[in-house]
Order: sequence, then C-alpha cells, then structure tokens
Amino acid sequence: MTRRRHDRSFVRTFFTSPTAVEGEDDSAKMLRRAAELRGMQAPDVWVPDNEDATAPSMRDQGAQNIVDVVAENGADFPGEIHPRMVWHRDDPTTRYQGFQHMLDIADPQKGAIEHIDGFVIPEVGGIDDWKKADEFFTIVEAEHGLEPGSLAMSVIIESGQAELAMRNLRDEMGKPENTLERLFLLVDGEVDYTKDMRALTPTGELPEWPELRHNTSRGASAAGCIAVDGPYDDIRDVEGYHERMRDNQAKGMLGIWSLTPGQVVEANQSPLPPKTGSWLLDTGDTEVELDSRDGVWTYDGTDVSLVETGNTYELAVDGSTQTLDDDELHETLLEMTAYVPSMDDVVDSMEEFEAAKAAGRGAIAMERSATLRIDEVEVAIATDRMWDEATYQAAMTPIALFQDVYENRPDQHEALVEMYGEDVVERAMAVGT
Amino acid sequence: MTRRRHDRSFVRTFFTSPTAVEGEDDSAKMLRRAAELRGMQAPDVWVPDNEDATAPSMRDQGAQNIVDVVAENGADFPGEIHPRMVWHRDDPTTRYQGFQHMLDIADPQKGAIEHIDGFVIPEVGGIDDWKKADEFFTIVEAEHGLEPGSLAMSVIIESGQAELAMRNLRDEMGKPENTLERLFLLVDGEVDYTKDMRALTPTGELPEWPELRHNTSRGASAAGCIAVDGPYDDIRDVEGYHERMRDNQAKGMLGIWSLTPGQVVEANQSPLPPKTGSWLLDTGDTEVELDSRDGVWTYDGTDVSLVETGNTYELAVDGSTQTLDDDELHETLLEMTAYVPSMDDVVDSMEEFEAAKAAGRGAIAMERSATLRIDEVEVAIATDRMWDEATYQAAMTPIALFQDVYENRPDQHEALVEMYGEDVVERAMAVGT
Amino acid sequence: MTRRRHDRSFVRTFFTSPTAVEGEDDSAKMLRRAAELRGMQAPDVWVPDNEDATAPSMRDQGAQNIVDVVAENGADFPGEIHPRMVWHRDDPTTRYQGFQHMLDIADPQKGAIEHIDGFVIPEVGGIDDWKKADEFFTIVEAEHGLEPGSLAMSVIIESGQAELAMRNLRDEMGKPENTLERLFLLVDGEVDYTKDMRALTPTGELPEWPELRHNTSRGASAAGCIAVDGPYDDIRDVEGYHERMRDNQAKGMLGIWSLTPGQVVEANQSPLPPKTGSWLLDTGDTEVELDSRDGVWTYDGTDVSLVETGNTYELAVDGSTQTLDDDELHETLLEMTAYVPSMDDVVDSMEEFEAAKAAGRGAIAMERSATLRIDEVEVAIATDRMWDEATYQAAMTPIALFQDVYENRPDQHEALVEMYGEDVVERAMAVGT
Repeated sequence: MTRRRHDRSFVRTFFTSPTAVEGEDDSAKMLRRAAELRGMQAPDVWVPDNEDATAPSMRDQGAQNIVDVVAENGADFPGEIHPRMVWHRDDPTTRYQGFQHMLDIADPQKGAIEHIDGFVIPEVGGIDDWKKADEFFTIVEAEHGLEPGSLAMSVIIESGQAELAMRNLRDEMGKPENTLERLFLLVDGEVDYTKDMRALTPTGELPEWPELRHNTSRGASAAGCIAVDGPYDDIRDVEGYHERMRDNQAKGMLGIWSLTPGQVVEANQSPLPPKTGSWLLDTGDTEVELDSRDGVWTYDGTDVSLVETGNTYELAVDGSTQTLDDDELHETLLEMTAYVPSMDDVVDSMEEFEAAKAAGRGAIAMERSATLRIDEVEVAIATDRMWDEATYQAAMTPIALFQDVYENRPDQHEALVEMYGEDVVERAMAVGT
Repeated sequence: MTRRRHDRSFVRTFFTSPTAVEGEDDSAKMLRRAAELRGMQAPDVWVPDNEDATAPSMRDQGAQNIVDVVAENGADFPGEIHPRMVWHRDDPTTRYQGFQHMLDIADPQKGAIEHIDGFVIPEVGGIDDWKKADEFFTIVEAEHGLEPGSLAMSVIIESGQAELAMRNLRDEMGKPENTLERLFLLVDGEVDYTKDMRALTPTGELPEWPELRHNTSRGASAAGCIAVDGPYDDIRDVEGYHERMRDNQAKGMLGIWSLTPGQVVEANQSPLPPKTGSWLLDTGDTEVELDSRDGVWTYDGTDVSLVETGNTYELAVDGSTQTLDDDELHETLLEMTAYVPSMDDVVDSMEEFEAAKAAGRGAIAMERSATLRIDEVEVAIATDRMWDEATYQAAMTPIALFQDVYENRPDQHEALVEMYGEDVVERAMAVGT
Repeated sequence: MTRRRHDRSFVRTFFTSPTAVEGEDDSAKMLRRAAELRGMQAPDVWVPDNEDATAPSMRDQGAQNIVDVVAENGADFPGEIHPRMVWHRDDPTTRYQGFQHMLDIADPQKGAIEHIDGFVIPEVGGIDDWKKADEFFTIVEAEHGLEPGSLAMSVIIESGQAELAMRNLRDEMGKPENTLERLFLLVDGEVDYTKDMRALTPTGELPEWPELRHNTSRGASAAGCIAVDGPYDDIRDVEGYHERMRDNQAKGMLGIWSLTPGQVVEANQSPLPPKTGSWLLDTGDTEVELDSRDGVWTYDGTDVSLVETGNTYELAVDGSTQTLDDDELHETLLEMTAYVPSMDDVVDSMEEFEAAKAAGRGAIAMERSATLRIDEVEVAIATDRMWDEATYQAAMTPIALFQDVYENRPDQHEALVEMYGEDVVERAMAVGT
C-alpha cells in the first residue's frame, strides 16, 4: 500500500528565498523578511535557497544565515521549512559541499534543526544519485542523534535522467540499504530541464513540458510523494499563473513554486473551491463566465445570440444559427453550459451523498438548475448528475486538501473563514470523516 | 516476438452490466437483458460487473446471478464474456472476496465457466499486485481442472502505479513463477485514476489524460494486449463520444467502454472505415465535410470563398485573400483538402498494391481526384500518393480489424453486408491474406 | 555522468538515399548523387538506406553499392556516413542478413569502412534486441581489427517495445557484456510505429505522436544520445516541415529526417538562430510577425486596432475593446508581444552576461525595446529580463549547436558567414568557451 508518510498530505506552495545577498548590511535580509510571512502570504513549504537564488560565493554565508534565521524565527513560522542545498549529479565537489552544509545546519547545538522539516536536493540524476543524497541524510541524522528518516528529502526534477528515475521509486523504497521513504516533494525545474533536454524556442520562452508534469504527478502518486511545478517567471502575469495552475491541477499536480508573496497568495487559494459557484457558457471559441444578476445568469457577449419566434428559438453560436423547439433549446444549452461549484456546493453534495449512503442507497441524482439570460430571452435549465461512490471519492480531493490546510495552517483560519464563512468551514471539516 | 495470444486480436467494445440490482423482482434483470443483445448492439466483450456497477451489499448475489445467467444464456451470446470481480491493491479483504467469487463462478458443475473467457480485475497496483491476481487465476484453474492459462485476465488501469506497471509486462511475462501471458485487455479507468492522481478541474469534469491513454496503448502494443479506453459518461453526447474515439484511434487505442447498447452500436462501427468516402476542406478554423452533389464536392459555408477573375482566382480563407493562377489554386486546394477513404477505397488501394507487388514493383502512385465547387466555381483536383510496403502495412490496420470482426462475430455479418455491400465485404476478407 | 561520446554533439539532418534502384543503368545512381552534396544541401548524417528505401530484391546489390560509392567518394563527403542495414525484432533471418551486410561493408580491404562512422539499425524491439545488434557490431569490429566500440550504432524507434527500451539505456550501458556506449542517434520512425501501435486516422494521415517524441528526446538526454524525428512525407509543404521542426525543438529533438536535398537545407538552418530579430504580436487567434519599417515594428492586420483618444487609448483585440492609459497600454502591449532574437542578439546577451559574471555579478537585467505601430499609433515599449546563470546556460543551446556545426562542417562556413556576417560568426565561436 502506498502511504503518504509526512505531516502534510498536500502542499500548495513552495516559496524560495535567497539565503545571502551580497552588498546588503545584513546578508540575511531576504531570509528574515520571508520568515515573517503569515496567513495566505506564507507558503506551505518555505525554501531558504542556498542554490540558484544565491551567488556561489555567498553559499557558505547562506548556510550560516539559514542557521541564524531559522533558530531565531523558525518556531513561529507557520509552514514547513525545507532549505535547498547545492547538489549536482555530475559534480562530486558540489555534492560534498551540499553534504557539509547539511551537516552544519543540522547540528542541534545551533538550534535550527528542530524547526527544519527536511532539505531540498536539486539537480539529481538517476536513482543511484538520489541514493547518494539519501545516504548523506542518513549520516547527518546519525551524527546528530536525530531520528532516522526524520528529515524529509525533496528533489528537483531538472534532467531527463531524474524524470526517468521517478518510475523506480516504488521498487527502490523500502530496500534495506536506503531510506528513500523520506522522499517528500517531487518538484519540476523547467529552466534547467530545458537546458538538459537541449530544447529551443524562437523567443527563448520555456516549453510547456506537459509530459514531464504528467510523469512527475504520476511518480508522486505511485510513491506517496507530492508533486510541485516549477517557477512561473512572469511575476506580473497573474492570469497566466492561474492558467498554469489549472492545467497542473488537471494533472494532479496541486503545488507550485512561488517567487513572491503575491504568488504565494494566488497559489495558496488556487486549488481551493471558490466562494461562490458560477455558470460557464461555451461560445464556440472559448468559455465565458456568466454574470449573475438577481439570480439570473446573464450572457452579455456577441458570439451567442438567442431570439424567440413564437414556439421556436433561433440560437446563433459563432455565426451559425439553429432553429430549436423548447426541448432542443434546453438540451443544447445544457451541452453549452457547465457549472463551477462553490465550496458550499461541494460540501452540500457530499453531505447529501453521505446521508443517502447511510440510508442504504448507492447512487443518487444531484440536481443543478439555473435561469440563463441571453439577449433578453430567459431560459430555465436543469440537469441531474448521478453520484456514486466513485464520484464521491473523486469530489473528495478538494475537501481533503481543504482539511489538510485547515489542520496544518491555523494562521490561515481567519482568511478561510472570511472567504467561506464559518458555517461552510465547519461543515467542510466534517464531511468524509 | 510479441504475439497476441487470444481469440480476438481487436476489441472494439467493452460493455458493463450490473450483476444484481436491489429492489427488483429479479435482481439479475439487467444481466438477462444484456445477455440478449445481438448484432451491432452486442459488444465484443461483455462484462457482468460485480464491482462498481453493483452495490457492495449485492455482490455475493451478483456472483450467483453471473453463474445463473451465463449458464443459461452464455452459449448464445455472440461476444466474449469477462465478468469483473472486486479487487483492490490496498485491501486484502477485497482481494480475497474477488478470489472467492472467481472460484465460485468457475466451478464447472455450475455450467457457466465454459462460456466465460476470462475475468476483469480492477484497481490493480504495481506489477506484484498483478501477480497476486494471476496466482488466483492459476489456483482457480487448478482447482477446477481448467487448462492452465485458459482464463484471460484483463485489468483496469486506474492508478499511477498501474500505469507504471505496464512498462514491465514484457519483462515479467514468461517468468516461470507467473502466467501473465493470460493478460488480454488493458482498460483505462479515468474516474478512479483521477482520484488516485488527486486531480482537480473547476467543473468536476474528468481530465483528458492523453499521456495515460498513450501509455496504455503502448503497453498493449509491447505486451501483445489490447488497449481499451474508459467510460464516456455523457451518454447523450454522441458526437463527443465519436470525438473521443477518433482521438483514441490515433493513439492505437481501438476499444472503448460502452455504458448502453446505443454506445455499443457507435463504438462497434467507429473504427471501421465508412461506407462512402468524403472530402474534407480545411477552412482555417476547422475542417468541414464537403457535400457531394452529382459527383461534385460542394462547399456551402462562408469561411472560404472563391472568385474567378479572368485568368486568376481570388481565394479568401477566414478573412485573408490570395490571388492565384491555375496551378497555384490547384496546389493550394490540395493543401486545404483531405480525403477520407471508404472501405471500398481502402480495399481498392490494397488490391492495386498487391497486384503491383506480385508484378515485382515495390512502390506505386495511387491517384485520387475530385471536382470541388466553391461559390459556383468548379475546380478539378488530383493528387498522387506513393504507396510502398510500409504504407500498405499501415493501411492494413482497419482491414485486419474488419477481418477479425467478421471472423468472430457472425451475428454482425448482416449489418456489415448491409453497410458495405456483399462485394466489398468479400474483397475486404480476401486482401492481405 | 552522462557524456556524449561521439564526434558530433548535435545532428540536424538525417538524409536517406536508396542504395540500389532497379532498372537504372547504374543502380547506385542515387547514392552517387547524394555523395556529391556539399554545404547546406549536405546532411550532418548521410544514410545510404539498404532497408525501406531499397527493394528487398536489391539489397545485396545495395550493400555492394554502399561499398563502391563510399570507397570512392566517402573521403570527400562533408557529413558523417551511417548506412542503414536490414533488421527486425521478430525475424532472425532479417537480422542475420543485416549482420552479413555489415560484415561485408566493414571489410577494410574494400576501402569503405574508413569513411563510415556507424550503422543504423531499424525495427529494434526490447533492449535485449538492441544487444543482439550491438553484439554483431562487436563481432564485425573484432573480425576486421577495428577498434572496439568505434562503430556508432543508431536505431529507429518504430515500435512500442523500442519506445519502452529507451528508458533502460542508462542502466544497461556500461555492463561488461555489451558495448551500448556505441549508441549515437535515436530516430523516430512514425510510419512503422503507427502500424505497430495499430493507430488509425480517418484520412490515413500519420498521428503526431507527441509522447513518443518526448520520450525519445528524454531517452537521448538520459543516455548521451541524439534525438532525431522521422520523415516528413509532404515534401512540398515547407511551412509544415518548419512547424514540425519548431515543435520538435521545443521538445529537445533538434534533428529530423530529410527526404530531399531541399529538406536538408531547411533542416540544417532551422535550429540556428535567425539572421535578424523580429517582434511577434499575439492577435488573440494567432501570433503574427511585425513588419520592420525604418525601425518601427508595424502591424498591418485587422484583428488588432488601436486608437488614441486624448489621454487614453482604445485597444481592440479580436473584437473586444479595452480603454487604457499610457501605462496600461505599455503593460498590455508587453504581454501581447514577444521578441525572436537574432544570432547577433543572442551573442550580445551572452557576452554581456559573461562580462558581468567576470565582474562578480550573478544576475543582470537585459533590456529590450522597440517602437510599435498599430493603425498609425506609435508606442515605444521596453522590457527587462533578468539573466542569471541558468538563463545563460539555457541560452547556450543554440550557440553550442552553432559551434558544433562550425567545427564539424567546414563546407558550411561560407553559407554561415553569408547568413550572419563574419563578425557575428567569430563572436559566436568565442562565447561560452
């Protein structure tokens, strides 16, 4: 059986901070600032980054800063703390430097390790390279009297080799010579992956790498780990960041790297169901969210038009017109619309199914209805969806995520209650248990 | 060499029926009804479903119903019969229950097993979990004096682990400790796969999982199995079902789950070449099928327009206009059109190539010509396509499928002759042999 | 560490020629003609094709022709020479024939092998089938006193089995019983792959197989090989060939099969940065290249319109209009545009970053600015992009490719200097070293 062995079953956000910045009075300034983040601005996993975000010449100082800042502020930080060390599959000197930094940071005398949940190892190669890193974790734990396996290991997947290694995790975990059960996050690193794959695009933009993200998500599913996507560089492009997250979520990759507290807020909220439900209308080219006015879902665009002519309707979509009777119009609009349920809706449906199950019924119809308005014509639509155990289990994912967040992030309770209301939060915590 | 070891080389349809429905006079009513299906409404593989389609409390009754209905009606059922048992990679109690049901159903005294071709095992995990199921098949065969390996095993791929397991089938089959050669269908189960991968979509719609479907098709190709896609829930959306099947077929996944006899009809026909050929025109946004009027392929839409002006033509596509001479127009229209060959066309081409090969020629040009009409302007187009051995072999797939259907499904002969005509059917059975 | 062990680190072009054509005075005519190709028309890898391009009855003659033509012209051919032998995972007779041809061609007495860099093996199956081929290479080398491992082995991936085998290369290379380190090119063969996967499309067109191409590129990355895409049949469709190459390049697959010297020219140029940079505008539906007039990048289409109205602007994109102030317009246009850097631009940026690094700075902002004109309104835009070591390394790919070409293909120097100018070529050869 594949178990998730760590405190968190879901990780929405992976936020990196440079560990030492040259030329500042306090080289640890960025670390100190990040350590103060709370609530929606604070990530599920905070990564003091002693690798790419920090200049090579500053990395010994960076390791020292991690110790200082985490010893001082780690107890109060609301998320987990997983510093990133240096590592490279092709360079033993870099690997040894990473080991030395871990050994240093993990010294209990220094007061940081009790607040550190694990380390992030970048640039791993084949599975035997992962084992080399695991062995250093084991030695660090033994040297410092920490519980074996207590330090989580997360890796950055940024080579074809590492992508291939993920398929072997299930077979390798549990062998007596390793402690790969400590694996926690599988994080894609598309910049270096693109380099390793020698990929080119005309504008220098990163390829989307859908297969990599699928394979990482699958690897996480098969090995009880958690999949996280790499950084989204265009910090100002909030809509683009959301699109990427939606695409990831449909792959089962619910976490993403965040480069700024603003991105952390977006990424902490993105996989949670919305506060209010909404209807979408497929206009041929695209899907638009309808506008709710006095309970009527209104389409204001020009790609779809609807005219009532006696007993029939003329429905025009993207230039082509159909003449439809009442039933056909209803059927066609059902095909063209989709409902995005709110947290309240999801909880409602789950409660309803749980009650039906308790009463001995295995499947029930969930009704959903709405009044649509297109060009002043109002049409009531209603649809049934059969829910069985499988539907219920699949609907559980956002609720399980919510519950994991609520249990592990008391600092976000206020924001969650503000978003959903106390009643919905309470009911969401009660379903499925 | 990878051989397909079962009677059927192709499976178009996988149709599930609940084995026991509560509250009916006859809990086996659905089974009995399905057992009567014939012709295009009858699936290649019928799956009395003692798992998700049947309430947990009814599954012992369901196993009994399978025995009763198959003993009575199995001899006359035109497709293969593969009941689905309960199983779960994470639950030994469920696995043991599945084993007991198999042992029960396979008892030759009960008269059902002689009509049963195998069993379907859902919710498998890593390859060692597949071996546990295989071991139960082996014991069932031994206990009941059935030929070793005679019961086919099909699995539902509904976890990341199972997706990964498929890559190992070639290495594991043939080891003396297992009989994995009994593997028959690899069936995707996207609902539970989505749950296992913890994927989310705003509307709760299933993700498309293109990589899973590719990997299942590849796994089937590499291990001599047959790939089948999961259920398409929106039963009324016939066009959507066809689109999904076309997408699957381009991946080499020629079979699909069917939830109703109506879906069975669609899915039995979908991978077969059409009765009549047709020309497609690429209008920029989409591809439309042209309308054949007195042998002239006519475009009636507004996205493409064509005007003759003395010696040149003005061709407008999706708003942008080109001025073209005769040759340029011909070339451009060739690029914009594609021909969907009929069964008759495919057989013609294969016969032509076979004759050329017999005469010592390795490659020949197949001509295709048509008269198009756009806005009253008629243009004759003609194109050559080189056929060599590889083209011929690739064109063989739909014919091989047709031949497999014709040989194994006498109950569909009438429908096939009605669709194609006796002459085409006879010639299709003769090519490539 | 994964090393590339061959002379070429990049291969852009894989050009096949029939080895023996029946009915010609000189059956080696096509080979002789190909052997004369020089400059941009000459491929990086030339493949006298004794398999599918040559009729089965002509293959013994073909092997003889390879010896004759390569002995005579091989010394002067500017690319590498890798003849394709016959092979099939399912047919020992074919494999033995391929072995005999290799043994024959490699005889040093015949004067060809000193100009031959390796052989291409088609239709391979699982990894053990690859080892059978490798063993024949080993015997050929031993029999003829050639250096062990000196003959490169390239394979055509044209079965699901072979696609799966690529994941094991890292684990298998270096085992004492094989010499798989000789692996050079992993070449997709989509026609036979489609047959092996039993895939269907309505028009008979080949599926795009994005997952196969990803997996081949990843396999090459993980094993130090080079990924090459299969043939693009529609020789007249130059734009389609370019689109396919751009798609491949975004997957890290920088090489492609070429069927004609014309395709070789296109494919040799495609992965190299363009001579001049250009701005792209996203018009909603598509991306168009802007027209540079007196240094102003001008949009002439109708999908985007811009009107200045006092202090604000009306920007209409694909039918929907926004009112924007100066800053918002600038921001929106930045989102809508992208720059395709020229070779000169890439070299500039790399030099700038190298200088900054030498001066102790780890990250610098690269500025890019332009004046756009839409509907007579001119707008200046400017953007910064942060470059760090990872950006620099990723930008290195096209330069490394250029350097590999320049070092290995003196016959293309003239064309490269003509394309880029002497100064840019010199600077491109100097960066990153």
